[in-house]
Amino acid sequence: MKIFVATSNDHKVEEIRRILEDFQIEIEKSPKKIFVEENGETFLENSVKKAYYYGNILGTPVVADDSGLVIDYLGGFPGVKSARFMENRPYKERMIEILRLMKMAEDRSAKFVCVASYYNPKTSFLISVEGVIEGEISYEVKGEKGFGYDPIFIPEGYKETFGELGQKVKDEISHRSRAFKKLFSIITKIGDILELGDDRK
Amino acid sequence: MKIFVATSNDHKVEEIRRILEDFQIEIEKSPKKIFVEENGETFLENSVKKAYYYGNILGTPVVADDSGLVIDYLGGFPGVKSARFMENRPYKERMIEILRLMKMAEDRSAKFVCVASYYNPKTSFLISVEGVIEGEISYEVKGEKGFGYDPIFIPEGYKETFGELGQKVKDEISHRSRAFKKLFSIITKIGDILELGDDRK
Repeated sequence: MKIFVATSNDHKVEEIRRILEDFQIEIEKSPKKIFVEENGETFLENSVKKAYYYGNILGTPVVADDSGLVIDYLGGFPGVKSARFMENRPYKERMIEILRLMKMAEDRSAKFVCVASYYNPKTSFLISVEGVIEGEISYEVKGEKGFGYDPIFIPEGYKETFGELGQKVKDEISHRSRAFKKLFSIITKIGDILELGDDRK
Repeated sequence: MKIFVATSNDHKVEEIRRILEDFQIEIEKSPKKIFVEENGETFLENSVKKAYYYGNILGTPVVADDSGLVIDYLGGFPGVKSARFMENRPYKERMIEILRLMKMAEDRSAKFVCVASYYNPKTSFLISVEGVIEGEISYEVKGEKGFGYDPIFIPEGYKETFGELGQKVKDEISHRSRAFKKLFSIITKIGDILELGDDRK
């Protein structure tokens, strides 16, 4: 089984490939770059939209995700706007801005959320699941590993940021890892229903 | 488990309740009538849209469907427009109009398609599956049972229309029956993954 990832981000493709190592699936970056306006109000909307557009244009099964950092003290910000907040600035600057906004914050609780979707345009089968990792926002930008907001997020049960902990821990416990593992556990488990259920075969 | 149906159509609620009789689920009509513009280009889009809007407003799990008659000779018409074609006219008149359009048609193949969706707004879990019943368009409007375009559709393997065959056969083989049975076979089978997988519990 070969599945395209609805993204043009090599980073993300590699991460998903590693996460899904144990499943018998070939993960490939989409052969076409397709523009999808990520203007949904929720991770679910954006995730479904990407899977749906890419799947319909490529004509084969695809996976997509939408992810972000949700900070309680900031009312959920940056949330679905995680990628677009200060879009043209490096993440380092964005993180410094977030730490500035949280200077007075005692409640530093936050979570990373990922909604992963699988869509097969041939059978109109669509499924989306959520993965969450709770944690808190650090007081400093720390660590060079990972990407995005990793260097200011300390996952529950740890003392270091995702930026310090690195890929191995992230592949185990991250929001994206949880979402994609759940997604493919489900798809693997219901393979027979889906096959039997394709009324047009 | 109690689930609301994203519809204000009593007919549909009763049909889904009968179809899902064997599953341990209480099916209820949505307590609120919510306007959702069904302007998608596919059954999947409309089905997901209804489930998503109703689910977010009601705050509990919902099911939705979008269905229609797809006629090959008419390039798939009325398809997603099945409900809106001659919207203010009785189905009888709409069926007569379709038979008129197909007067010269030798190829009378058609299918009923249903995309059923389940959405749980608390966990961002969304799933959509398709049910299809192949058949052909009759030469006359026949039978008083069922609703919509049932009296001009003869399902594969039968000689009478859905309008003549009635509810019992329809509950067995219809597009809606196939879609909803597949949907709940899947949900039942992955209950443990979904429970375990709710990272916020």
